[in-house]
Amino acid sequence: MRVLAIGTYSDLDAEALRQDFGAEILPGLDDLAGLSGREAVAALAYKSGAALDGAVMDRLPGLKVIANFGVGYDAIDIPAATARGIQVTNTPDVLNDDVADLAVAMWIALARQMYPAENWLREGAWHQGRPLALARKASGRRVGILGLGRIGREIANRLAAFKCEIHYVSRQEKETPGWTYHADATSLAAAVDDLFVALVGGPDTEGAVSAEVILALGADGTLINIARGSVVDEEALLQALGNRLIRGAALDVFRDEPNIDRRFLALDNVLLLPHIGSATTETRAEMGALQRQNLRAVLDGQPALTPVNRV
Amino acid sequence: MRVLAIGTYSDLDAEALRQDFGAEILPGLDDLAGLSGREAVAALAYKSGAALDGAVMDRLPGLKVIANFGVGYDAIDIPAATARGIQVTNTPDVLNDDVADLAVAMWIALARQMYPAENWLREGAWHQGRPLALARKASGRRVGILGLGRIGREIANRLAAFKCEIHYVSRQEKETPGWTYHADATSLAAAVDDLFVALVGGPDTEGAVSAEVILALGADGTLINIARGSVVDEEALLQALGNRLIRGAALDVFRDEPNIDRRFLALDNVLLLPHIGSATTETRAEMGALQRQNLRAVLDGQPALTPVNRV
Repeated sequence: MRVLAIGTYSDLDAEALRQDFGAEILPGLDDLAGLSGREAVAALAYKSGAALDGAVMDRLPGLKVIANFGVGYDAIDIPAATARGIQVTNTPDVLNDDVADLAVAMWIALARQMYPAENWLREGAWHQGRPLALARKASGRRVGILGLGRIGREIANRLAAFKCEIHYVSRQEKETPGWTYHADATSLAAAVDDLFVALVGGPDTEGAVSAEVILALGADGTLINIARGSVVDEEALLQALGNRLIRGAALDVFRDEPNIDRRFLALDNVLLLPHIGSATTETRAEMGALQRQNLRAVLDGQPALTPVNRV
Repeated sequence: MRVLAIGTYSDLDAEALRQDFGAEILPGLDDLAGLSGREAVAALAYKSGAALDGAVMDRLPGLKVIANFGVGYDAIDIPAATARGIQVTNTPDVLNDDVADLAVAMWIALARQMYPAENWLREGAWHQGRPLALARKASGRRVGILGLGRIGREIANRLAAFKCEIHYVSRQEKETPGWTYHADATSLAAAVDDLFVALVGGPDTEGAVSAEVILALGADGTLINIARGSVVDEEALLQALGNRLIRGAALDVFRDEPNIDRRFLALDNVLLLPHIGSATTETRAEMGALQRQNLRAVLDGQPALTPVNRV
């Protein structure tokens, strides 16, 4: 019974995968093609954004489990896995705090223009007495959470401490401490100042933050995306930012990572991060541990801890 | 009855000072020396970090009120003002949210290495596939608030939403939702991971964050200062950062602003901001309005709205 691990793992995770499972670690899916003895592969530890579809699965006919490193599994064709009886798992919850922390800091950093202010100081402009434009206040703004799942709720809980009026969209109305439910993203965007995108990725949410939604935010509105680039119409966002139809955007995720649209770099009303939502030593260690627990459970014939499909 | 305004005012504030008080606006205290008819000056709107001492006050023998723009009035010699029967006022409370927002964002940005991450993206390193070191988690850490005044409490209230265990120092134990009181800064620093400095400035708190306090934070500790540079032993802080005796520092204030110690710029474990705690259009407008309300009240023989001395 062979275990493969695809992706770039930390030393700690790589060591644990080898020790606990005798795993072979391959940098990417491309390396599968030249691999001999593929029939014996029963488990795949997966840490990549590259599409893992039915054709790839068919190269590993003995595959029982794909344990994804990360909560978002939009790179994996779930129906194809289910059709082949392959259990897919992910690593939810352990990263909620990190992603929510980052979302809140991105929101404040954008409003307060922290990145430009630090550059201004480091360039010596303060010392030279050059003027620095005033920024904008964060606390007390009306905020919208698009997708009140586990991460969305962590964001909302934090924003409540910043005296924000909280609005949200989710598939159905939820039990909340008085937050306002909206049935669709445009109505949500129209009701708030700042919109946090916390939807899952995948085909169902593709382009959910459309031109209409973006424009509904208005000239004082900002967009914060810590979910997936696919959720946002990036062309519409670039136009809105360039023409100052919204005030700004703070983005940790992009459509084509890591080859982000270079037009973002020319804008002065964006905060741009390289998908670091869960990139802390603490959380990545927990994600790795949960990935291995899922592998172990399925290989032992036990239920997965955090399954994403039913097989 | 003449009103002078010292400092660099926004167009909005300058216009209001001229309109409401016929104020003359001077860039700095140095301009007082050459001013004729100083005897008629009854009120000073003050927006500067330059020392305003008894000798300066004696140049304006008819002065009744110094209305400071800002909550911190450590630049003004309060006993000297009191001895001369001059009412000093400040602009508290209206900036609490802004300063607390910034403190929380600085704390997360430092832990999550947001500034280096944005630079890394903008330099093209993501696109080139260069490795980015993992950062550290913010939520759930033990935090200390040195000075649980109005701003300190706003910081603590926000940190509670980040699942932090909260410790504090203040002159006496306060009514809190279960936060832990410490009698001194060293005990506080030893009990927490991250220390937020929220003391008032001035001689009483000079160097309160001593080498001993800094070292008590330990190698995983961080320091966040949004109060006054004078509160921290900067030499000790530079040594601790350079030798990695603490993990990092996020600083919005410095001993010698705007000529900050250039050794800070060479460190890779600091976040450095140019004293932007209250630098938002919303809050600066409120501060200006409160400054003028104080001027108006005292000139009309009414009690000041937010006095800092008793005359």
